[in-house]
Amino acid sequence: MYFEHTDKVKELEEKLNEFMEEEIYPNEKTYKEQLNEGGNRWKAPQIMEELKTKAKKQGLWNLFLPNSEYGAGLTNLEYAPLAEIMGRSSIASEVFNCSAPDTGNMEVLVRFGSEDQRKKWLIPLLNGEIRSVYSMTEPEVGSSDATNISTTIVREGDEYVINGRKWFSSGANDPRCKIAIVMGKSNFEGSKHKQHSQILVPLDTTGVNVKRYIPVLGYDDAPHGHAEIEYNNVRVPASNLLLGEGRGFEISQGRLGPGRIHHCMRTIGMAERALDLMIERVKNRVTFGKLLVDQGVIRQWIADSRMEIEQARLLTLKTAYMIDKVGGKNARKEISMIKVIGSQMVSKVVDRAIQSFGAAGVSDDTPLAYMYARARALRLGDGPDEVHCEVVARLELKGK
Amino acid sequence: MYFEHTDKVKELEEKLNEFMEEEIYPNEKTYKEQLNEGGNRWKAPQIMEELKTKAKKQGLWNLFLPNSEYGAGLTNLEYAPLAEIMGRSSIASEVFNCSAPDTGNMEVLVRFGSEDQRKKWLIPLLNGEIRSVYSMTEPEVGSSDATNISTTIVREGDEYVINGRKWFSSGANDPRCKIAIVMGKSNFEGSKHKQHSQILVPLDTTGVNVKRYIPVLGYDDAPHGHAEIEYNNVRVPASNLLLGEGRGFEISQGRLGPGRIHHCMRTIGMAERALDLMIERVKNRVTFGKLLVDQGVIRQWIADSRMEIEQARLLTLKTAYMIDKVGGKNARKEISMIKVIGSQMVSKVVDRAIQSFGAAGVSDDTPLAYMYARARALRLGDGPDEVHCEVVARLELKGK
Amino acid sequence: MYFEHTDKVKELEEKLNEFMEEEIYPNEKTYKEQLNEGGNRWKAPQIMEELKTKAKKQGLWNLFLPNSEYGAGLTNLEYAPLAEIMGRSSIASEVFNCSAPDTGNMEVLVRFGSEDQRKKWLIPLLNGEIRSVYSMTEPEVGSSDATNISTTIVREGDEYVINGRKWFSSGANDPRCKIAIVMGKSNFEGSKHKQHSQILVPLDTTGVNVKRYIPVLGYDDAPHGHAEIEYNNVRVPASNLLLGEGRGFEISQGRLGPGRIHHCMRTIGMAERALDLMIERVKNRVTFGKLLVDQGVIRQWIADSRMEIEQARLLTLKTAYMIDKVGGKNARKEISMIKVIGSQMVSKVVDRAIQSFGAAGVSDDTPLAYMYARARALRLGDGPDEVHCEVVARLELKGK
Amino acid sequence: MYFEHTDKVKELEEKLNEFMEEEIYPNEKTYKEQLNEGGNRWKAPQIMEELKTKAKKQGLWNLFLPNSEYGAGLTNLEYAPLAEIMGRSSIASEVFNCSAPDTGNMEVLVRFGSEDQRKKWLIPLLNGEIRSVYSMTEPEVGSSDATNISTTIVREGDEYVINGRKWFSSGANDPRCKIAIVMGKSNFEGSKHKQHSQILVPLDTTGVNVKRYIPVLGYDDAPHGHAEIEYNNVRVPASNLLLGEGRGFEISQGRLGPGRIHHCMRTIGMAERALDLMIERVKNRVTFGKLLVDQGVIRQWIADSRMEIEQARLLTLKTAYMIDKVGGKNARKEISMIKVIGSQMVSKVVDRAIQSFGAAGVSDDTPLAYMYARARALRLGDGPDEVHCEVVARLELKGK
Repeated sequence: MYFEHTDKVKELEEKLNEFMEEEIYPNEKTYKEQLNEGGNRWKAPQIMEELKTKAKKQGLWNLFLPNSEYGAGLTNLEYAPLAEIMGRSSIASEVFNCSAPDTGNMEVLVRFGSEDQRKKWLIPLLNGEIRSVYSMTEPEVGSSDATNISTTIVREGDEYVINGRKWFSSGANDPRCKIAIVMGKSNFEGSKHKQHSQILVPLDTTGVNVKRYIPVLGYDDAPHGHAEIEYNNVRVPASNLLLGEGRGFEISQGRLGPGRIHHCMRTIGMAERALDLMIERVKNRVTFGKLLVDQGVIRQWIADSRMEIEQARLLTLKTAYMIDKVGGKNARKEISMIKVIGSQMVSKVVDRAIQSFGAAGVSDDTPLAYMYARARALRLGDGPDEVHCEVVARLELKGK
Repeated sequence: MYFEHTDKVKELEEKLNEFMEEEIYPNEKTYKEQLNEGGNRWKAPQIMEELKTKAKKQGLWNLFLPNSEYGAGLTNLEYAPLAEIMGRSSIASEVFNCSAPDTGNMEVLVRFGSEDQRKKWLIPLLNGEIRSVYSMTEPEVGSSDATNISTTIVREGDEYVINGRKWFSSGANDPRCKIAIVMGKSNFEGSKHKQHSQILVPLDTTGVNVKRYIPVLGYDDAPHGHAEIEYNNVRVPASNLLLGEGRGFEISQGRLGPGRIHHCMRTIGMAERALDLMIERVKNRVTFGKLLVDQGVIRQWIADSRMEIEQARLLTLKTAYMIDKVGGKNARKEISMIKVIGSQMVSKVVDRAIQSFGAAGVSDDTPLAYMYARARALRLGDGPDEVHCEVVARLELKGK
Repeated sequence: MYFEHTDKVKELEEKLNEFMEEEIYPNEKTYKEQLNEGGNRWKAPQIMEELKTKAKKQGLWNLFLPNSEYGAGLTNLEYAPLAEIMGRSSIASEVFNCSAPDTGNMEVLVRFGSEDQRKKWLIPLLNGEIRSVYSMTEPEVGSSDATNISTTIVREGDEYVINGRKWFSSGANDPRCKIAIVMGKSNFEGSKHKQHSQILVPLDTTGVNVKRYIPVLGYDDAPHGHAEIEYNNVRVPASNLLLGEGRGFEISQGRLGPGRIHHCMRTIGMAERALDLMIERVKNRVTFGKLLVDQGVIRQWIADSRMEIEQARLLTLKTAYMIDKVGGKNARKEISMIKVIGSQMVSKVVDRAIQSFGAAGVSDDTPLAYMYARARALRLGDGPDEVHCEVVARLELKGK
Repeated sequence: MYFEHTDKVKELEEKLNEFMEEEIYPNEKTYKEQLNEGGNRWKAPQIMEELKTKAKKQGLWNLFLPNSEYGAGLTNLEYAPLAEIMGRSSIASEVFNCSAPDTGNMEVLVRFGSEDQRKKWLIPLLNGEIRSVYSMTEPEVGSSDATNISTTIVREGDEYVINGRKWFSSGANDPRCKIAIVMGKSNFEGSKHKQHSQILVPLDTTGVNVKRYIPVLGYDDAPHGHAEIEYNNVRVPASNLLLGEGRGFEISQGRLGPGRIHHCMRTIGMAERALDLMIERVKNRVTFGKLLVDQGVIRQWIADSRMEIEQARLLTLKTAYMIDKVGGKNARKEISMIKVIGSQMVSKVVDRAIQSFGAAGVSDDTPLAYMYARARALRLGDGPDEVHCEVVARLELKGK
């Protein structure tokens, strides 16, 4: 047992923190303003591309991607504190080319993509030139049980023909988004975990109809967006299939472990920022003749928040350690645990921060209201908490 | 002790429920569509005016307003189950001319307005021709302690001159909104509860600048809106003052009791609707080979929701009974209790409903996401829960 | 809706409160001392019999028992506030001959007993001359599902022969306890809710072996006790059977409604006493230079306690109202709800009170530690909370 | 960051687990039986001395005591998983001479004792020949603020004279207990953290009157006990003073860090045992036609318990790491956090286990009821949770 990061990680933390202070926090407002300019929010604000260039120049680029020649060569454990720092600002991850779902999609391409697939899609993603979408969840079926997925991927000659309706295909509303990984049913017999495949679908293919963006708890998440997409007789070359027919679950298992832990790392940063804001507020706000910090339950809230954050962080780090050491499959229990803990913890911390801010807390004048929506959505993203609790219980009952 | 409503109330409940089924629920979507038409959301959708006409015709109009010749002659206790029913739909209260802040403002005018003030503002409000705003909260001060309010109302000759900045002046973004009741400081000496006054300010007065609407947890609440308003040397006739100089607190005390209980009544309806939606969902959605209703914690959630709703409803009814019987001032403890309980209860119930819906729960395809934002905001509206808990504790410690 | 008790009830409340102040609270210590005298705690302290005589003289006797010529002629709703007052002291209910399980057993005899059974057992119970036990729960089976009950009651000639093992047969360790109502299986075919019977078994019958008392969370509950009883070829006359063979469930349904609500009424009194003690403590205890009442979360705890108590009380009263009006069977949902709410509410309130008292709170120098154990046990007594939540959910899902 | 114990620790874990399986668990019942024999529970059961001899022989002795020539040479971090294992049984710690308050008292003597004091008291304690008491808490004052301590320690010639009343002097009812460390006021001026001293008082000194044992939530904790002690003109040689006059706080600071973390380590073991028992139960108990494990909220409880335990364990380990590395003073925040988290976590886990067991859960047929009392008491032991939350908040607000 050893509770300190290596010097390499500490240096990256410092560098990243500096970048956050100098480039990210001061530009959060600019980003929002540029987004709102001109009435169309579905465009990339100029400031984002400028920050990406700066980050790339400083080597703060593609820090995710463990065990790969493509990334920065960090393990999940080493990446964890860095993702946490990025999590402090909603615009940060993209700046460092570390934002979902691109990270997960790049991991899929690194691990399971053919040489040709990598050249065509991985390289521009790694360069931050395009964005991507993971098109999985469907409105008509309970998609947390992915065997329900009903979109079809049917071979016809040298092509696959895709038909179905997806939603919460996050990122597809972004004009920079060029490629989707689509999950669907290709085989209609045999073991139910071997009937699905994943396939690369360029968004400009005929029959791909992005119908609308779906607001999440009031937020459009522009320019990213959560798209509803209709796949209407979409034809792509057979070579676009990932890994092989019926191997869709294999891919999503490989994808989801790191994906979930990245979210969790970021929630810790989000919670730290919320706690910082709260402390700043209550030290400076007077009601009923006293500073808020000297009233009622505020100090209890601060203590509770600190206790919850510390515990969540340690379990996230341990999970990262285990993914590195025994692989995502053997770290399933830990991955499910931090998925649940991360989102619930940040929900509670942000909720208290909002309450400390009074009316300002629900406005968009602080980042808290948006964090609140994000945190709530995370309790459903990548499967509702309850599905993950069931995983934990099942493994526990098996003595694993 | 007697736990049934009178026949008069039961008849109104039935009539109202029928109206909800026939006119309100089927038009929720229409309302939203009309609102989104043409790019400008700051307008009254046609359907609203149509529904108002129908409601008025059926006598479902101004059901609030106890002890007054103006309203329907119901007590608070009689109004409670009706407000609950209205609370089931976010568009319903306005249809019946029972929506905040107009109800509170009308009560102020009924109780404290001069004959002239009533003629000019109360009558059109009662007719549903105009809307109004209660301009109280300020961004710069902790306004839950209203002695902090710093906007000034200074007498100059036959006029009062108003200067200050307000926000969360809900309703002021609505084009039909014509009049504001503004709270400010008129006297700068003496007891701190006798320094503030309330004054009627027509929104078209020179110097009234509605700067922006403030989104609440992602929602703009158009066409209503939560406005930030700058009062810049605004001059109104001295006769616009309500009740008298230094009597602002007297007015807000009178206003807040019923205001809070109306919110609470509606939260119960909101919670009932969320529970209905949840039950409908879990009875029909399959994951992992079983209906949701037969899985995990869902049934516990249903039981918890029912238990919380029932208790909140009973305390709300008792509070209404006490306001009727001993007056708002002597029902302070109950009013503070239900203010806290109502918003927390509905927050929990809606949260569970969202979780049962999965991704759909955070979209705008169900009313749940908006309810979630409303419920959260209510934990701050009319003073944060913690301020009300302090009231309860203080009275309890005094043995009251 | 009407939220006040009748004058008759108010007078009884006053009288009862006076008795509590003058006779009960001052003698709690005496009772404990007499119980501890002489090394044997399994005896009736003298003071109890004295207090019973006084209570009887004042007409504060058998206040429970609605709709019966035997009791005081009160409805459940009228009895509720009186039971609440009794709940403030652990020795009070017995003083007024209103303690479990005698009350439930008397109700069974009133409703289902033959004339002979009433004469023999009901009359001495009504007079407070003997005590009784309800022998239901078994160690080997999950008894919250009473169809599991496996003790046998087999007819042989003019007798029934009883064999089985029971535990938590509360009261059987008391030397004054003379009679048990035993639930067992008499019919081994047919509908599983028609296989059980209930039968009267005098404790001095050959083969009734009270093996031990079972401490509940550290307390022996002497002289009452929670007995483990072996029924070893116990023979009683066939006329001891209650109501008829296979009608055991009919009896327990009739018994449990009022039983549960009595417990719930008393938990409210228990919670009120805990809150009183807590308030008294925090107003007088100084740490870190300030009264406890001015520190941290204490005031929040007071407010939370008040809010929880008020809500639980109202739902208990409504449930009593419904039992009176539509009968226990049609008030199942309410009965299950208050069963859960009452015990959880008092658990929370007492927990906070203990925490406010520091070390003294876990000692026996205050009534809190014992209350804590009682409250916890009540979450299991008459079926675990979860079984009752399932009842609520099931009825809710059926739209009832 | 590294999440595995060293091989040395793993070997000790294995050895200890074996000892638990072979010697401890099977003898829990024997211990209880021997304690109950003969009517006097205030004696050491024979089995305890036998187990101590075996443990000592196997080198499983005095495993606590970091940085000292006296103990096993383990760091706090190394000791943590071992203390966790001991925590699984209420009789285990004493077997390995690792039980409170002896461990803390030995640490005090190791660090602050004179050579003579060590020879006289430390050696027999290390050998497990005698036991000791830490006499700190007083009934009359809020002792979580130790500056309130009012017992006096006054120099008279070559002696100190002690007067005062203490309670919760745990262990003093044990006949093997020979020595007390008493905290009292020796200086009546100057800084309030320099007015108290600690002094060694043999229990057989004239004027030391052990008045009674105080049950904790129903349990007498025999033969250990929680004593109320009157110090009535107790005279001890001046050389019995520890460290020096006015240095009492210095000592208790040094004592409390490890003391608290030991408790927390043990609570993790206690929670693991409770979870084991619960899982065993629900896999084998049928109600309503289904195994408990397939019903309702049980699986959620298992998942929640696992998540809470894992997080608490990691923070405990990190705290141990910090005490080793930067010292207890600089690990104050962590120490306070795990003090709160440990007791609350185990309270929740044990509560769920009890609920799964039904009536058996509150009896003494499983270890759960006693664990429940212990867990609850720990929320007050070494200062109420709220005092520790205040420490966390204060440090957090200072940015530490």
